[in-house]
Amino acid sequence: MKIGLLGHGVVGKGVSRICDVSKTLQVKRILVKDDWELTDPRCTQNVQDILGDPEIDVVVECMGGIEPARTFLMKAIQNHKHVVTSNKKMLANCCEDLFAEAEKNNVSIHYEATCGGGIPWMASLERILRIDPVDSFRGIFNGTTNYILSRMDLESLEFEPLLKEAQQLGYAEQNPSDDIDGMDVKYKVALSCMKAFGVIPVLDEIPTYGIRYIQKKDLDYAKSKGMTCKLIGTGIKKEGSIEASVLPVFLKKEDVLANTSMNFNAIESDSATLGKAVFTGQGAGSLPTAHAVVQDIYDIENKEAMEYPSLQEVTVINSAEKIFYLRSKQITDYADILDQQIDAETYLTKKISLDDLQKKIQEDKEIFIAEVQE
Amino acid sequence: MKIGLLGHGVVGKGVSRICDVSKTLQVKRILVKDDWELTDPRCTQNVQDILGDPEIDVVVECMGGIEPARTFLMKAIQNHKHVVTSNKKMLANCCEDLFAEAEKNNVSIHYEATCGGGIPWMASLERILRIDPVDSFRGIFNGTTNYILSRMDLESLEFEPLLKEAQQLGYAEQNPSDDIDGMDVKYKVALSCMKAFGVIPVLDEIPTYGIRYIQKKDLDYAKSKGMTCKLIGTGIKKEGSIEASVLPVFLKKEDVLANTSMNFNAIESDSATLGKAVFTGQGAGSLPTAHAVVQDIYDIENKEAMEYPSLQEVTVINSAEKIFYLRSKQITDYADILDQQIDAETYLTKKISLDDLQKKIQEDKEIFIAEVQE
Repeated sequence: MKIGLLGHGVVGKGVSRICDVSKTLQVKRILVKDDWELTDPRCTQNVQDILGDPEIDVVVECMGGIEPARTFLMKAIQNHKHVVTSNKKMLANCCEDLFAEAEKNNVSIHYEATCGGGIPWMASLERILRIDPVDSFRGIFNGTTNYILSRMDLESLEFEPLLKEAQQLGYAEQNPSDDIDGMDVKYKVALSCMKAFGVIPVLDEIPTYGIRYIQKKDLDYAKSKGMTCKLIGTGIKKEGSIEASVLPVFLKKEDVLANTSMNFNAIESDSATLGKAVFTGQGAGSLPTAHAVVQDIYDIENKEAMEYPSLQEVTVINSAEKIFYLRSKQITDYADILDQQIDAETYLTKKISLDDLQKKIQEDKEIFIAEVQE
Repeated sequence: MKIGLLGHGVVGKGVSRICDVSKTLQVKRILVKDDWELTDPRCTQNVQDILGDPEIDVVVECMGGIEPARTFLMKAIQNHKHVVTSNKKMLANCCEDLFAEAEKNNVSIHYEATCGGGIPWMASLERILRIDPVDSFRGIFNGTTNYILSRMDLESLEFEPLLKEAQQLGYAEQNPSDDIDGMDVKYKVALSCMKAFGVIPVLDEIPTYGIRYIQKKDLDYAKSKGMTCKLIGTGIKKEGSIEASVLPVFLKKEDVLANTSMNFNAIESDSATLGKAVFTGQGAGSLPTAHAVVQDIYDIENKEAMEYPSLQEVTVINSAEKIFYLRSKQITDYADILDQQIDAETYLTKKISLDDLQKKIQEDKEIFIAEVQE
């Protein structure tokens, strides 16, 4: 198969490295942005060298960002090329248009690398779905926050210096918002819902809380209760809606997700005959993510018939009642839902749905909340 | 696809239950042993009704035991039927003959359900192997022993009453030797080596130690060091040989396998670009195991070309030096390899290879040994 690669960063370089030693996959052209990236004779700064090349069967997009990635892939599809992307933000925002266009042109869109790095999550879901409808999933989908939370827990450190260190080591972006505010996980939850349930949740309706305001003392409290904090993305299929959220959760230490440390990701599916199954692996990094991309290319090479999800957009409802850990400088605003006091600004709530809690905390920007596993 | 089912026990019933609600899979005949099992009009006591039926495409064997399962499958293959089996003992002992016959007759042998119950372990290995050679694997392959070890650890109980309870609940066989002496895991390690490395280890050369003689105090010691005991099967690819063993291991509590509890199995693979990946799920049970069997049937339905492993038999060498926990009534016999004393009959050894240790303990039947993770 002849491949056109859009983007030659961390993931793109891994893809060309793996393809270059394969027997059947040939990266023919590589789109780069800047002059200094023109290090390989296959590199070009003109996307038309890829989109307009009839020899290229598959366009692999590892650019990130919504535009111009979306436009490039749309044109690739219109030129009857299969598409593989590692770009969760773009795909979660533009999946309806892209899938509709792919069906029209009889090509496929693969996106294993959008979730869980090298973990064969999408492939495992597809396999399970041959037998079971998938009822729910939950997981650690972000390596950067898991690295920070693991070190906070193991070494009793504060959040801020660890974030700075992660940025210096290149584990976290200079603008870390997508990671630490949970946006990255939100896109992954949406794409997992798409694969697992065949529906597209309304992105803005997914309650999304991150770890920006977490403190050492929150983890100390969790530890005193035999728990640890993880940033968990969840999806549960309901009749006519889905339950989906991105939320710090105090997990019991014996929970398999509680023991997924550092930059590892772990995702659990639940379905009727298989029951609970957990898939764990490196959630990011050049080669694991590139491995997922190349698996997609092999799937395209091996598959004859394309399958198109008949996607319908569904509303997100989080009505299940839970106990939350809640720390806020304006804690008195929440008097009616508070139960057990932990310190002056920290309480456990009475049982409340995430939807109801979210309405209450809309204006409270520096709040830290975590679901407490029962 | 039309299916002939050999055996209608726990797994076989699960297979017919899943197939009966599928769109394309039809269980046409079911071989049962006794009159009281003739509960379904498809049941027969004459295997020829299946092996001789030209309409049947796939023969699924869930009988257990080496014979007559082996003979039936050999005849099925000679009659050009694909074969799916959940029978690890038979396949680990007879794989060379069966695969040779399958290649001759251009049919395939699938065996996902032999290892890890519902966990897509063989499928994941196959997928990884499209890109990476697999370097090693290790895992919890037996649900019965993991259930006993988990409860010993959580509730500080002794082995014997838990085994009795597991037998009463039907989790353990009346003759529990295959589970508690590690034989069941040995077969699974051998079949995993076959899939992962393309070689057949000499079965008798795999050092196999179980948990028959484990005591509460062994787990108490492990716990005092921040560890827990799991029965671990391992395979590591070497030049011209493999390292493979079945052995209790004191694992650090933060190891992902240490947190795989009760009847769950977990298997980790390591390979160049994907790195470490862990697959966790229910290691036994009617529906999870049947799920794995039915996945194999779908693979046969979807695949056109068969692949035959070019299997070579290789020797097993365990020369890596490790520290072992060793408890024996004849502990003085081991004076030259002992290091730190734990109690009158229990020591940690100096670093020693498993091969050398095995030579020393050949005659000592009631010994308990465990590798201590470093």
